[in-house]
Amino acid sequence: MLAFPVMPTPPDDVTVLITSFLEPEHVRRIAAAGAGVRVLYDPQLVAPPRFASDHSGRPGFRRTPDQEARYLGWLAEADVHFDLDAEFAPAFPTLAPRLRWIQATSSGIGPLVRRTGLDRSGVTITNAAGIHAVPLAEHVLLALLYFVKDVPARLREQRAHVWTRHSGRELHGLTATVVGLGAVGLEVARTLRSAGVHVIGIRRSPLTADEANRVDEAATPAHLREILPRSDALVLIAPHTRETEGMIGATELALLPPGAIVVNIARGALIDEGALIDGLQRGHLGGAALDVAAVEPLPADSPLWDLPNVLITPHSAATVARENERLTDLFVENLRRYRAGEPLRNLLKL
Amino acid sequence: MLAFPVMPTPPDDVTVLITSFLEPEHVRRIAAAGAGVRVLYDPQLVAPPRFASDHSGRPGFRRTPDQEARYLGWLAEADVHFDLDAEFAPAFPTLAPRLRWIQATSSGIGPLVRRTGLDRSGVTITNAAGIHAVPLAEHVLLALLYFVKDVPARLREQRAHVWTRHSGRELHGLTATVVGLGAVGLEVARTLRSAGVHVIGIRRSPLTADEANRVDEAATPAHLREILPRSDALVLIAPHTRETEGMIGATELALLPPGAIVVNIARGALIDEGALIDGLQRGHLGGAALDVAAVEPLPADSPLWDLPNVLITPHSAATVARENERLTDLFVENLRRYRAGEPLRNLLKL
Repeated sequence: MLAFPVMPTPPDDVTVLITSFLEPEHVRRIAAAGAGVRVLYDPQLVAPPRFASDHSGRPGFRRTPDQEARYLGWLAEADVHFDLDAEFAPAFPTLAPRLRWIQATSSGIGPLVRRTGLDRSGVTITNAAGIHAVPLAEHVLLALLYFVKDVPARLREQRAHVWTRHSGRELHGLTATVVGLGAVGLEVARTLRSAGVHVIGIRRSPLTADEANRVDEAATPAHLREILPRSDALVLIAPHTRETEGMIGATELALLPPGAIVVNIARGALIDEGALIDGLQRGHLGGAALDVAAVEPLPADSPLWDLPNVLITPHSAATVARENERLTDLFVENLRRYRAGEPLRNLLKL
Repeated sequence: MLAFPVMPTPPDDVTVLITSFLEPEHVRRIAAAGAGVRVLYDPQLVAPPRFASDHSGRPGFRRTPDQEARYLGWLAEADVHFDLDAEFAPAFPTLAPRLRWIQATSSGIGPLVRRTGLDRSGVTITNAAGIHAVPLAEHVLLALLYFVKDVPARLREQRAHVWTRHSGRELHGLTATVVGLGAVGLEVARTLRSAGVHVIGIRRSPLTADEANRVDEAATPAHLREILPRSDALVLIAPHTRETEGMIGATELALLPPGAIVVNIARGALIDEGALIDGLQRGHLGGAALDVAAVEPLPADSPLWDLPNVLITPHSAATVARENERLTDLFVENLRRYRAGEPLRNLLKL
């Protein structure tokens, strides 16, 4: 029994450096996340965004020497970074000695973390997995409907002013195999199942009972080749790792039924792009919606640009105006957990 | 109490004439629908289909005199028609004296029934409402995603080999007003709500409790003008009646918020096409997906063909290869009800 009310220990002060553009209302929310939160942010010190929720910013942006000195001073003071500054990351052990945690603003950051040596730095890293689930699931739905309803043919006829009635296809009743069942893959599965699609989920790690209920079937990557022949659509959303690199090659594409649709919202490295182009050109594949490519920006001389059964979105399917709002939601919750000593959400396994 | 088992009364014989092309497997299902069902069908006597589930057939089709004599003989014998023969319908009182029931193969047949005098003939007519719910709901989903995700801009950039990252929009969180809440409207509502769209249903007649649960809000057409300003999308699927003709004019279109999307899967007569073109040209409307037009086929000189924010489908959004399968399901069930003296499904109110 306590005779006196116990006052909570005052939280230690925490200094947060925001390393890419963020709207003032979101900066204010972070600053108001709790007593002792100090935010270091000046939009002049980060690359100007080219579009809403752009975290890379205009290429070629350079700070003035004065600005650079201020930014380096902030790096030295910050305990936490909102966004991963890829330029300075290799030097964080010397430039950012107080840094304990980085909240990244994208999901597929494993290769970047390894390239910059952050995986060996002892800094905790959380990614933005799930933030993009809704726009990416909508993109997959659009991509499948685009090819199932043969929008390219409709647009050709429209350009020719041709009104010819025809019989089309339905998404309902098709089978889609979703490779990668994280937050995005599960939202893709939910969205497609609402439209009557039979969803087969592929994931290396076992599914929880709740996750298993969210797909019609599940299997490990070892069974992929058995599943491909009955996959009307193949949706890639797995992270880029040594295991997933090149996992979809000529053999896998040939195992898909004629007319199958490929949607890649993961990374270009997961698929053999030459084999994909070949399958599209020969007409074995019905269509491909590509948000990512082996080399980005996709080279101007890539045959993918001009294939009628290809829909290209320039690594933007995940990006919507509301992204920074959702990122800030995640960060504020993770900041609360960080200060309370609770496990962070979206912890990157290093 | 019955001392002996009662044998059901043997069903009366019923003669069914199929007046448009139907695949052999579906004809067999109808013939096997019960003892005493006699099917009159010869694919040579009906116009050849131009695509799967085409019920109009090749224009200009003519029967030989022998074929015509056989067909007229069948008209005289049939109790039930599968499909509405628009050519002979005005003469049914003399040519088809036994005719009691017509199962039409489309939904929007009110004007045709009135034009051919069938509304005064005493013949029972059922339509195909609901048969097209799934493909039409998928079409609406495609249409909204097409404009929300700005596919026209993506395709322009793709043709120019331009890879520029950008920030897009989400369907999730938008508001869609669905005018007409029959079987199709309710399936459109279900599909859109699964994608996080707030759905307002407009219907003249009151909703049942179950129907009311299938929309976020409901109102009568008298409230349409109050609802339009918060409708990011306007989906028309109401029948063409005196009340609905021209219900969407310049005033209604101007009440929509800038960038709103219009989807018409009903009939061209519901909307003032000139006002629609004006709204699209001025950029007040974000886009229009038109499966129907004031005059069909859409005249080759209509400005709609070349507007970049228009997606035209030639009255085909409802037509899928599986349509005849679903029509046959409906007909076989209605044939059972007809013979059992039960109320038919999809009874046209005359």
